[in-house]
Amino acid sequence: MKLARIGEAGREIPVVVAGDHYLDLSALTDDIDGAFLSTSLDRVAAAVREGTLPRIERDGQRIGAPIARPSAVICVGMNYAAHAAESGAEPPEDLVVFFKTPNTVSGPDDDVAIPPGSVKTDWEVELGVVIGRRASYLGSAEEALAHIAGYTVVNDLSEREWQIERSGGQWSKGKSFPGFSPVGPWLVTADEVDPDALRLRSRVNGEPRQDSSTADMIFGVAEIVLRLSRFLVLEPGDLIMTGTPEGVALSGRFPYLAAGDVVEVEIDGLGRQRQVTR
Amino acid sequence: MKLARIGEAGREIPVVVAGDHYLDLSALTDDIDGAFLSTSLDRVAAAVREGTLPRIERDGQRIGAPIARPSAVICVGMNYAAHAAESGAEPPEDLVVFFKTPNTVSGPDDDVAIPPGSVKTDWEVELGVVIGRRASYLGSAEEALAHIAGYTVVNDLSEREWQIERSGGQWSKGKSFPGFSPVGPWLVTADEVDPDALRLRSRVNGEPRQDSSTADMIFGVAEIVLRLSRFLVLEPGDLIMTGTPEGVALSGRFPYLAAGDVVEVEIDGLGRQRQVTR
Repeated sequence: MKLARIGEAGREIPVVVAGDHYLDLSALTDDIDGAFLSTSLDRVAAAVREGTLPRIERDGQRIGAPIARPSAVICVGMNYAAHAAESGAEPPEDLVVFFKTPNTVSGPDDDVAIPPGSVKTDWEVELGVVIGRRASYLGSAEEALAHIAGYTVVNDLSEREWQIERSGGQWSKGKSFPGFSPVGPWLVTADEVDPDALRLRSRVNGEPRQDSSTADMIFGVAEIVLRLSRFLVLEPGDLIMTGTPEGVALSGRFPYLAAGDVVEVEIDGLGRQRQVTR
Repeated sequence: MKLARIGEAGREIPVVVAGDHYLDLSALTDDIDGAFLSTSLDRVAAAVREGTLPRIERDGQRIGAPIARPSAVICVGMNYAAHAAESGAEPPEDLVVFFKTPNTVSGPDDDVAIPPGSVKTDWEVELGVVIGRRASYLGSAEEALAHIAGYTVVNDLSEREWQIERSGGQWSKGKSFPGFSPVGPWLVTADEVDPDALRLRSRVNGEPRQDSSTADMIFGVAEIVLRLSRFLVLEPGDLIMTGTPEGVALSGRFPYLAAGDVVEVEIDGLGRQRQVTR
C-alpha cells in the first residue's frame, strides 16, 4: 500500500493511494503516526479490499510528509563508498550516525528556504525507512526487517558551512534548518519494496546529479536497523535516512543551491519530490 | 515556581512544589509539555496564590522527569574550557552541537542500565534549559532569555567507546542508550534562576567528581539559545543540555561507571539526582 497525507501543513488528512484515487483514512486514524503504524496496517488493507473507504479529491491538494512528526530522525552518514570519497573520507567500518530535529520534516514539494547568508546548501537523495514497531537490542537482520513499516523518499538537505566548517566536527548543526527534511510523497509499506535494489536519483534544474542504487550501500537497510537498535531505541513512526550516494555539491563538481533552483529527488517505486528553493 | 511530575513512568501527574507539599496541576493541564509551558505558567502562579490546587501525597512516589518528552534534546559540547582540555580538545570558537533521542529522557532517580558490554559509561552533570516559546532567528540575548521557560538538572550520560572510538567522530552514537538522560527533579521557572552563577556538582559513590559553576561556561545560556535559533527551530518544551564541566571519567582521573555505583548530580537551587547503575 501507498499511504500519504494531504492538505495544509499541520492539518494533513491521512489517505491511502489506490491507483489514481485517494481514499480517506480519517475513519480509521487521526494520523499516520507511530500508534497507527504499529497496530493498524492490516485494518487499512482490509478496508481497501472491502471498498469501504470514501474517495477524496486530490486536485489542488498539497502533499504533506506521509508520516506525522517522528520522535526521532536518525541519519546514517557516508553509507555509499563513492560519496565518502567525494566528501574526502574513507568508507566507514561501522555506522556513522547523526540526528536531525524532527521539526525539519516537511512535504515533498514544499518550497525550501535557503538559510540566511548560506552559500553551501546541498541536496541529498536518500532512502527513508519508517519504523513500525519499537526496536531495541534486536537479534538478527530478519528481526530488523520485521520492525520496518515501510519506505519513503527523503531529501537530507545540508548546509555544508554549518555542517563542516563551523561545527567543531558535529554534523547536526548544518542539518536542522527549517524545512530541511522533505519526506514523501508516499510511505510504501514494506511488503511491496525490496529496499536493497532501488534506483535513486536527484536533479537540479533538470540536470542529473545523483544516480545510484541502494545496492551500493555499505550498510544495507536490515543491517542499519539492527545496528541502531544496539545503541538507541527506535520508536514506531521514527524515520531513518540511510545515507546519500555520490553527486552532491560538496564534491566540487556542481554548484550549491541558490534561490529559484528546482530540486527533484526520486526513488523508483517510491515517487518523486520537487522543491523550489527561495 | 518548581514544577515536577510524579508517578510511574509514562503515567506521571503534573504538580507544583510548594514548600513541603505537592499541589496537583491535573485540573489545569494533562502534562508539563510545550503547549502548557507556552501558555499556562501565569495560571499556575495564580492558582498557587489563590490556594485552589489540591495537595497530593508525596511519600513513596517516583519522581519523573519534570517535562513531558521533548520534540528535541539538543546538547552543547565542550562548553567548559577545563572539560575541553581533559577531553583532549581546544576550547571551541563556536557552539559544538549534537542531539540525543528524546526517548532517553528519564526520571532523576531512575536506575541507569550500563549498556551491554560497556566499560566506558560516564556521567556529566549539566544545566538543562527548557524552552517556553518557539524560537527561530532570534535577534538578541535578551530575546533569547525571554524564550526560556525554566531550568533543570540533567545527567548527560555517555558511553565513550560508542561516542568516540566506534562513531566515525559523530558523538550522538554514544549518547542515546535507554535512560541516558535523567532530568529533574524540578523545572524551576526562569524568574527564579540566575543561570550564569549556578554551582554544579557530581559525585560517584559519595566521592566528589565535578564541582564547577555555570559562570565558567564558554557560551552562556542566552548566547546558546540565540545561536541555536540561527540554525534550527526550538519548540516549546524542548530541552537543551548546556555542556559539562571537568571531572568526568573520560579525563582518565576516575574509573568509569560499573554496576552498583551510585551517581549523584546536583545544581544549587535546582535539586539533586541520584541514580544507581545496574
